Amino acid sequence: MLKVIFHIDEMDKWKLVLGNAKNMLNAEPDSGVAVLANSEAVRLYADRVHEQYPVMLALAAEGVSFIACRNALKLEALDEDALPPEISVVPAGVAELAKKQHSGYAYIRP
Amino acid sequence: MLKVIFHIDEMDKWKLVLGNAKNMLNAEPDSGVAVLANSEAVRLYADRVHEQYPVMLALAAEGVSFIACRNALKLEALDEDALPPEISVVPAGVAELAKKQHSGYAYIRP
Amino acid sequence: MLKVIFHIDEMDKWKLVLGNAKNMLNAEPDSGVAVLANSEAVRLYADRVHEQYPVMLALAAEGVSFIACRNALKLEALDEDALPPEISVVPAGVAELAKKQHSGYAYIRP
Repeated sequence: MLKVIFHIDEMDKWKLVLGNAKNMLNAEPDSGVAVLANSEAVRLYADRVHEQYPVMLALAAEGVSFIACRNALKLEALDEDALPPEISVVPAGVAELAKKQHSGYAYIRP
Repeated sequence: MLKVIFHIDEMDKWKLVLGNAKNMLNAEPDSGVAVLANSEAVRLYADRVHEQYPVMLALAAEGVSFIACRNALKLEALDEDALPPEISVVPAGVAELAKKQHSGYAYIRP
Repeated sequence: MLKVIFHIDEMDKWKLVLGNAKNMLNAEPDSGVAVLANSEAVRLYADRVHEQYPVMLALAAEGVSFIACRNALKLEALDEDALPPEISVVPAGVAELAKKQHSGYAYIRP
């Protein structure tokens, strides 16, 4: 199975990243797709009125895994417990990116 | 053999990416070098008056493989059949990036 | 051991990259962390009054490996021999990024 992790750390990249994730699913329906947000990009997860928020939830419903970096959530003063259940939180985004690559995920940074 | 795929999705990164590809060839003449363009970056392939267009063709002549994402070509309203023969087209750029990494290519995103 | 190489080619990404490297060390104290600078980003290594310069040296003291691309140093007209001893220089940054990935390093481009 093709596994891919997308890395995003800028808010203005969300449209591109979510479009990339959708293209990946369309091209390879059986692939495993994850999106790791760190730095300011974690804000989308808590921003229910952002135009890309429903796009993100729709992709989550299609099986895309959305991950937040806890360090970034703290820096952005976002309450982890207030995030939607689709988001999983890891202690450090960069460590997760490394672990995912070591477990066979390709890395894509749009 | 060292294999590398460069990923570009912004037009203003072409000079940097092509310079990086040239440095790679100079440092490792036997390496396999590919450049995958998606999003707006596919425009260079159809822009014969762009200053980086001849640089791209010269690198293709030296063996660098240039790849376009079909999704991106459609979004940019570019005619696939009008591209120069040096360009190969894949159905989805992100899937190609994942496959290349799984087949041993290192990934570099300048 | 988890090994990671961070890639930076823009000066204004140093704060983010050094913060990422610090987070990596905090999360995985036994990991091997390298930072490869090419393009204009090599300037930090020679800029002793830059606010991120002492941050870089402190991370080097914690074991982070800082690498400069010789091609980039030449383009920036920086004297390799004037760099602090913490910096190692490689002939081509992109070749180093490829070799590191082929030797088991995960790649992260903040």
